[in-house]
Amino acid sequence: MRIAVDVMGSDNYPLPDIEGAIQAAREYGDEVLLVGDQSTIEATLSKFDVNGLKLTIIHAEEVVTMHDKPGAVGKSKPNSSMHVGMNLINSGDAQAFVTAGNTGAALTIAMLFTLRRIPGVKRPALSSIIKVRGHQVILVDIGANTDSKPEWMAQFALMGDIYARKALGLQNPRIALLSNGEEEEKGNQAIRETHEILSTYPQLNFVGNVEPKEVLSDQADVVVSDGFTGNIVVKAFEAFGNALSGLIREELTRDPVSMLGGLLAKRAFNRVSKQIDPFEIGGAPLLGVNGVVIIGHGRSNARAIKNAIGQARLAVTGNIVQAIHDGLNVSQSMREDTAE
Amino acid sequence: MRIAVDVMGSDNYPLPDIEGAIQAAREYGDEVLLVGDQSTIEATLSKFDVNGLKLTIIHAEEVVTMHDKPGAVGKSKPNSSMHVGMNLINSGDAQAFVTAGNTGAALTIAMLFTLRRIPGVKRPALSSIIKVRGHQVILVDIGANTDSKPEWMAQFALMGDIYARKALGLQNPRIALLSNGEEEEKGNQAIRETHEILSTYPQLNFVGNVEPKEVLSDQADVVVSDGFTGNIVVKAFEAFGNALSGLIREELTRDPVSMLGGLLAKRAFNRVSKQIDPFEIGGAPLLGVNGVVIIGHGRSNARAIKNAIGQARLAVTGNIVQAIHDGLNVSQSMREDTAE
Repeated sequence: MRIAVDVMGSDNYPLPDIEGAIQAAREYGDEVLLVGDQSTIEATLSKFDVNGLKLTIIHAEEVVTMHDKPGAVGKSKPNSSMHVGMNLINSGDAQAFVTAGNTGAALTIAMLFTLRRIPGVKRPALSSIIKVRGHQVILVDIGANTDSKPEWMAQFALMGDIYARKALGLQNPRIALLSNGEEEEKGNQAIRETHEILSTYPQLNFVGNVEPKEVLSDQADVVVSDGFTGNIVVKAFEAFGNALSGLIREELTRDPVSMLGGLLAKRAFNRVSKQIDPFEIGGAPLLGVNGVVIIGHGRSNARAIKNAIGQARLAVTGNIVQAIHDGLNVSQSMREDTAE
Repeated sequence: MRIAVDVMGSDNYPLPDIEGAIQAAREYGDEVLLVGDQSTIEATLSKFDVNGLKLTIIHAEEVVTMHDKPGAVGKSKPNSSMHVGMNLINSGDAQAFVTAGNTGAALTIAMLFTLRRIPGVKRPALSSIIKVRGHQVILVDIGANTDSKPEWMAQFALMGDIYARKALGLQNPRIALLSNGEEEEKGNQAIRETHEILSTYPQLNFVGNVEPKEVLSDQADVVVSDGFTGNIVVKAFEAFGNALSGLIREELTRDPVSMLGGLLAKRAFNRVSKQIDPFEIGGAPLLGVNGVVIIGHGRSNARAIKNAIGQARLAVTGNIVQAIHDGLNVSQSMREDTAE
């Protein structure tokens, strides 16, 4: 397998990106294509022992930054590492592309400039895979479509279902809709309409609406939302987690007895961190574009990049692009049959 | 001041509701009207020493439960403690009503059956007051209007601003809009349109969009959202807080050293709990109905009810209903002047 990695992606690029790529090449034995500025990559690689690893440098002249406007950068920087990396999929030189860079730019470049959509996909969607207490849940959409139409969200459910089956290996994933209450009449208009559509899909194990607490408590494997709400709920989890951990850290250092308690409980805290660690998953797919693209968090460290590459391997092995293509077209013809 | 309290409201009614009312009558010296089933109230009161307190029982035959449909209960239970309590405001026998009962029912009964709207208010909104690290922020709407129109949200901002000034005593409250990014072009269509409207209000200190992390970090005093997203973000904070505290508790008891650490750090954990305790605020106003109604959490304990009554006192003292009436009409005529 050959996986292309954007080494100009993470907030602290290129070190975490390159180090993560090296770890992945070592652990998985795959060929990893390092996409970015050649001399920067060479300088960084020289610090590591990469003997025997299949690492190839692919030069890209331009870099997409977090300040680049997603709508403009596709045109203004046609030789960015994102363009070059995604085009490696088009040319057959790579089976997947991993980036921890500007998410909006990655979406635009994938959708409009390089990979484009899988035929039949109305709108690609950004997913996030959250792991709490050992259980993984895919949230989709978490930000690609701020105004999601019900028929798009119905497709997000189908794509999430296929990803859960093919890439994550679940037998009968539970598909849920994020709402403000479990009852089917809950939700805003778009969510209520999506609920109606999903109720008519016999191929889905649709378990109805879930609230945020069910997202975190193993009540669903795929949680569908509009891109606006999905983005905010993911950020709300993160924000509250950070606020609470910050408070705990502060209060544990406020008096000597608490400080000692904190030291003794260090192993327990490490076990907690491990169970809610976003870097353990590392990245999640951009569902619906015609190629495997895994998006990582800007704050990714080397381990997160390595794990994002691991996620790319799952998506490639699961043949996810073909499966979405086939799955959506089957759903489409099933609906046409029903309508006749 | 006379404040009516729904003693059939909380999940564990009537004990927390009555005990909270007793605490409030003692602490504030106000007259508290206990609204609910007379014999139940008498039986509960007999367990407390209420000598010298101004407590009056107001009998109400029916009880709204969490299973009652908000849309139906207004008609089907016209003698509920919610109806009777809100009608005490209409008759001038109370200046405020506090309930920890079914929120949707309270909204419907207030809006359509008893208090109705303040003239000029398009849609009443449910607020929540979150306190983190000593800073209070009012979120509005957190669930009254799942499909909020931009002009309604603009009014939520005005009402939130007035509440922050008059009831909470802030000089120049910072008003923000909950969105998926800080830039003004972020948000779904309704949020972008609301942003445009708020930018034209000279009377508001509008600080633009905020993400969930800014809600928790003293970047705004009033955060406006549609009722769907507001409800989900509040539930997401709560869900992640509960998940994380649960994990910490579990891991602290998994080995003897961590357990000792946890015991030594108990005071620090208590200080943390106190800083994120939802019961310290107790309740928040239903903004825009023609009377002071404070809604508490179903899980309220006695202290939460007492504090919700404290919030009602602030709203009454701030003359919040008149202030919203005047404030909206000034805004209205300012806009008409500008339009000429």
